[in-house]
Amino acid sequence: MGAVTNSEWSVPATSTALLTDQYELTMLAAALADGSGHRRCSFEVFARKLPNGRRYGVVAGVERVLDAIARFRFGEPELAIVSRFLDDDTIAWLRDYRFGGDVDGYREGELYFPGSPILSVRGTFAECVLLETLILSILNHDSAIASAAARMVGAAGGRKLIEMGSRRAHEEAAVACSRAAYLAGFDATSNLEAVRRYGAPGAGTSAHAYTLLHTTAAGPDEAAAFRGQIAHLGVGTTLLVDTYDITEGVRTAIEVAGPELGGVRIDSGDLGVWARQVRAQLDSLGAVNTKIVVSGDLDEYAIAALRAEPVDTYGVGTSLVTGSGAPTAGMVYKLVEVDGLPVAKRSSHKASRGGTKSAIRLARPTGTIVEEVVHPMGSPAPESAELVGRPLMVPMVRGGERAPDLPGLTDARDLLAANLVSLPWEGLKLSNGEAAVPTRFVD
Amino acid sequence: MGAVTNSEWSVPATSTALLTDQYELTMLAAALADGSGHRRCSFEVFARKLPNGRRYGVVAGVERVLDAIARFRFGEPELAIVSRFLDDDTIAWLRDYRFGGDVDGYREGELYFPGSPILSVRGTFAECVLLETLILSILNHDSAIASAAARMVGAAGGRKLIEMGSRRAHEEAAVACSRAAYLAGFDATSNLEAVRRYGAPGAGTSAHAYTLLHTTAAGPDEAAAFRGQIAHLGVGTTLLVDTYDITEGVRTAIEVAGPELGGVRIDSGDLGVWARQVRAQLDSLGAVNTKIVVSGDLDEYAIAALRAEPVDTYGVGTSLVTGSGAPTAGMVYKLVEVDGLPVAKRSSHKASRGGTKSAIRLARPTGTIVEEVVHPMGSPAPESAELVGRPLMVPMVRGGERAPDLPGLTDARDLLAANLVSLPWEGLKLSNGEAAVPTRFVD
Repeated sequence: MGAVTNSEWSVPATSTALLTDQYELTMLAAALADGSGHRRCSFEVFARKLPNGRRYGVVAGVERVLDAIARFRFGEPELAIVSRFLDDDTIAWLRDYRFGGDVDGYREGELYFPGSPILSVRGTFAECVLLETLILSILNHDSAIASAAARMVGAAGGRKLIEMGSRRAHEEAAVACSRAAYLAGFDATSNLEAVRRYGAPGAGTSAHAYTLLHTTAAGPDEAAAFRGQIAHLGVGTTLLVDTYDITEGVRTAIEVAGPELGGVRIDSGDLGVWARQVRAQLDSLGAVNTKIVVSGDLDEYAIAALRAEPVDTYGVGTSLVTGSGAPTAGMVYKLVEVDGLPVAKRSSHKASRGGTKSAIRLARPTGTIVEEVVHPMGSPAPESAELVGRPLMVPMVRGGERAPDLPGLTDARDLLAANLVSLPWEGLKLSNGEAAVPTRFVD
Repeated sequence: MGAVTNSEWSVPATSTALLTDQYELTMLAAALADGSGHRRCSFEVFARKLPNGRRYGVVAGVERVLDAIARFRFGEPELAIVSRFLDDDTIAWLRDYRFGGDVDGYREGELYFPGSPILSVRGTFAECVLLETLILSILNHDSAIASAAARMVGAAGGRKLIEMGSRRAHEEAAVACSRAAYLAGFDATSNLEAVRRYGAPGAGTSAHAYTLLHTTAAGPDEAAAFRGQIAHLGVGTTLLVDTYDITEGVRTAIEVAGPELGGVRIDSGDLGVWARQVRAQLDSLGAVNTKIVVSGDLDEYAIAALRAEPVDTYGVGTSLVTGSGAPTAGMVYKLVEVDGLPVAKRSSHKASRGGTKSAIRLARPTGTIVEEVVHPMGSPAPESAELVGRPLMVPMVRGGERAPDLPGLTDARDLLAANLVSLPWEGLKLSNGEAAVPTRFVD
């Protein structure tokens, strides 16, 4: 490929400072000029509601947020852009910018509900306001995907799930989708960059193109394709059997591979009907351990509908990477406190609660959660004689320094799995409804 | 901020080679081993249908695709990942890989319909199959956003549109969303990285946080906030007037700025009612040239519903970056020809048409398009006595070299604007329906 005239456009810069909205910078400039930029402020990330009658949300993206904050620095290339509309004093301030405040928040894998104070960011107005867009981009995306993925994991009831939606998402968003799906309990991903960045297990064997490739002037030759795949990937591989006729494809697969074939994948047709028919056919051929993988427009409802069928693994693509009808979590980043004064917007429909907050979740001694209580940060959490409280916010950044020993991706996966067990049974329903537990706000 | 232990994870690599699905690599390995990987193949990108009863789709992302293909190279870091599951011969082949085939396709800004051969990628199976996931990621994302954006542009009927959805999208996807929106005719974007990479005009002044920041122990002080903004950004700025009470906010805004105030923004409430009321109030205060900007959960339907109201500019966020209900375009990348033989999948519901194709669009002498004709590539396009045909595919890559003088973003914007004028009137309806023109397939 010849010279790439615009390659500098398409290589995402190491700095994250321009992944933001222009108004964060113009507000900064006005606030530095009138002195208000140095006031001590507290911003809060929360969601006003859960999308589409969901019962819970899943926090994801926090580690990516902390990394992005650390890279929120203005080098000369970034300053060249913002100097088009900013004054010299603001530019000088940005040149030295690094976030020096505090962050507390819900860990990745934590559940959230409407009004949960998912992230608290504190410092001067100037240093905190700049981070709004970037923090929300990451949390809104990753939490939307993890929230949808968790419902799929629940619907699968212990069967394996492979994330394979990269082609239906922006190429970088796809990597974050894989991460969020793995966090939520998916077993593997097709996305190799997610394997590299996050250590998620990779999966994938072949597509219809590989079978079609073995066409000759005499016509299709599915057996040749299967032989090629088995020869190279071994009999443990999964053969895609629906390029032509599924029943023929299964017969050919076992003829070529023998009854030790690892799996067959069905990507079209009525998956439930085919799973039953293919299972019977495989068993009759002695391939009793050959797994059945199904894929093709699966979402949590389709996954649940297949629970009575002999399916071993679900491959999920589009619905995962699009949040299954809720592609963004709708979280907002609101100023809640200025120099110790609670502040809140009052205009219609979008009112918010002032003051820096923390939260605990109360559970019965059996572990089932009962309610979430949001209370002023720094005040003791309300206690209960019969219920066990668990604080939800942990320190993540202090004076600009990231807290040591923050949980990693595997910890988040474990935390979410434990959290889902703690939901009351209604909370795991796929149907529309109220949040799984109520949230109580105390002053 | 302290040491970032995983910073290498989060910096997108310059190489795009791992932004792909594992099975592209396992297919490659099997095909290289059995010799079929060297067969001459032709892959085609097309959409089986348009989402949600849309009348047309907009091609976007082609320039990003060509750039990503040029960066699809395996360095040692990429090879280290794929060598976990690939043989030495395949690794050696990948080390030297660069795409050396041909690409033809629809230009950015071109309309597409079900079955349009949007991109034709030709070369050996091995060199072409590898690009599937990455090409689809980019085209599916960017085309979904541009398709939604074009409907909004139509609905706005010449009024200004600002894209401000970055916070509701993955941080890198947000940049591509800004690009797609600008391509589709939006006037400006809030996203500064899109300003840098693509030269899109930037926009944005202030948020509620800036007004809330000026709270004192005596209470809110909206006037102080407005004074600070005017002092720094001038009276041409846009003041956000709905933090507390909109009528009060407008009065305060004109008191502080005078009747030369550039604009006021309303972000909540019944936007139509408020636009009328605020226009009357502004006019009564002599601020007859002060613009009204509205924002807050606007989509193409809400934009259209406000056409009778005195709105000057729409700010669009969530619905834009989520494709207004269709976050992915659903395009596929299918093998259609092997060594000159047409090939096609035959299984239920997902059948495809074999053979390498090209397309023309036929229009009346008035310019209104009548149908699209998809025909074998290399055969002459069908002619018509009364209709004017325009070929839709242009050469983009030849022998791995990018064609010179490919259209840029501004050209794409102009092409789309011209294309929308060429649609029959039903094609511009927002309601669900059939594709604006039929597509005819000739052998």
